[in-house]
Amino acid sequence: MSFEITILGSSAAVPVKGRHMTSQHVRIGNHQFLIDCGEATQHQLLEMGISLHKIEHIFISHLHGDHFFGLPGLLSTMNIQRRTAPLYIHGPRGLDEVLLASFKHSNTELNYKICLYDNPTMFPDVIFENDHITVETIPLIHRVPCTGFLFREKKKQYRIIPEKLPSGLPFDAFRALKRGEDIEFQGETIQFKDVTLPPRRSRSYAFCSDTKFSRSVISKVYGVDLLYHESTFMHRHLERANTTFHTTALQAGQIAKEAKVGKLLIGHFSARYGDLKVLLEESKTEFENTELAKEGRKFSIIERD
Amino acid sequence: MSFEITILGSSAAVPVKGRHMTSQHVRIGNHQFLIDCGEATQHQLLEMGISLHKIEHIFISHLHGDHFFGLPGLLSTMNIQRRTAPLYIHGPRGLDEVLLASFKHSNTELNYKICLYDNPTMFPDVIFENDHITVETIPLIHRVPCTGFLFREKKKQYRIIPEKLPSGLPFDAFRALKRGEDIEFQGETIQFKDVTLPPRRSRSYAFCSDTKFSRSVISKVYGVDLLYHESTFMHRHLERANTTFHTTALQAGQIAKEAKVGKLLIGHFSARYGDLKVLLEESKTEFENTELAKEGRKFSIIERD
Repeated sequence: MSFEITILGSSAAVPVKGRHMTSQHVRIGNHQFLIDCGEATQHQLLEMGISLHKIEHIFISHLHGDHFFGLPGLLSTMNIQRRTAPLYIHGPRGLDEVLLASFKHSNTELNYKICLYDNPTMFPDVIFENDHITVETIPLIHRVPCTGFLFREKKKQYRIIPEKLPSGLPFDAFRALKRGEDIEFQGETIQFKDVTLPPRRSRSYAFCSDTKFSRSVISKVYGVDLLYHESTFMHRHLERANTTFHTTALQAGQIAKEAKVGKLLIGHFSARYGDLKVLLEESKTEFENTELAKEGRKFSIIERD
Repeated sequence: MSFEITILGSSAAVPVKGRHMTSQHVRIGNHQFLIDCGEATQHQLLEMGISLHKIEHIFISHLHGDHFFGLPGLLSTMNIQRRTAPLYIHGPRGLDEVLLASFKHSNTELNYKICLYDNPTMFPDVIFENDHITVETIPLIHRVPCTGFLFREKKKQYRIIPEKLPSGLPFDAFRALKRGEDIEFQGETIQFKDVTLPPRRSRSYAFCSDTKFSRSVISKVYGVDLLYHESTFMHRHLERANTTFHTTALQAGQIAKEAKVGKLLIGHFSARYGDLKVLLEESKTEFENTELAKEGRKFSIIERD
């Protein structure tokens, strides 16, 4: 099953030539999600050949414009392109007001249903789940209520070794073994451990933007395969990072190191940095496996034993 | 004095690869204006190297998203870039609601003042003037209240022929001649006609989007140097144009011909047309001097006698 993140925007606050405001597309198996929706997100999706139609859920971290000003346009285009499938939007309280005001004077009647849910911001909470994954909020510390999102595969099933099974095994028994239960068959006990391989690891992706540096994040993202953490500033601009409730590249690296994540992506770069290498190098001094979350880059989390 | 229109977006309703939603930048002498502000207008300005800071007035034709969803982001970026000069926005009633809702939850306090004026939509009216130009609304027929905008230079002054003037002429007399008044000097009458050339022609630009085909526009834009008229559809899609209150390329050409304009720009193209030549050719069957209002193109109106 695929587990792939595509970066649509890497820029903080304002666009820079070649850099767009925050948005990421997440594809997990047959399901597609969008995280944040800065202005021109729909242009970026178009540019990268990603269809709007298959996006089922949109997660908005907070109500600063660079994270949601692209939403009214995206919803409008979905409508014009005759979407009928419901769309689920998980955002901070107040997002409904913005959307209602945006459409009020245009006499827009949507062909599809929007289900809008307020993100819990005080404590981590599961806000979405399907058969394969859960999405949980990560409370962040910013100038307005803000949450990150943790995408995590559910515990996977034991993997049957077909040649070790007796023939004629009923379907229910087959499913029980996959769940890790021993079964009785023709008067004998078959232990699941004898006929299965252990489940594959459950993969995970954590998105943390925007936030002041906070060690409280470490336990929430501990051991994830891939962590996106904002790195708006270099550490020499720490004071600016503190007053604006943002994180430095060095601090992002520290969090990745202490949380023992697989890989760190840094993004949400201040427009003051023309060459992003300096941020990458700074983060790498703390955590070597860092990459820049730049526009158009795709990051796949591979299934492993 | 320069009089230059730069096209930022040519697309109707939704973006198409390489085509953005409606916005135009107008530069007249030292003054800069924006007409409409579809999503990603600020990206287009950045791309074309046009500074946001010098824009003094923004004119919004109507409250369909493809004409104003870029406004909250633009205003926000102006703020982040420390604008202090007031900004004047002329838009349909209701725009204030959208802007207030967009900023309400972000705790944004603007460093600069926004002066918001409701466009009169029933009758043409001058909504802005300075020493050199007026901007007048053009009532249009669309699914929501909508106006075009007519930029017109005021009547210019007579041009002094220096070698025909006696020396020692006081400044007041000089100014009177430029206004086309005869003067007395050292007991003699100097007729302005003898010492001046006639004023240069006053230039004009009319912007008409979105609208159903309507002959009532002809008298409003009669004789303008440059007319931008929406041409969302080809004439074979006339029925669709009528139901959605848009104009065909053929009809835009007819209006240009009957209004005896200097040049016609067509734009606001439906996403269904990949190759825009077909629209250009159709309009040219009625009015030869038609051009496509495509992204990045600049149209200058030259001063003439």
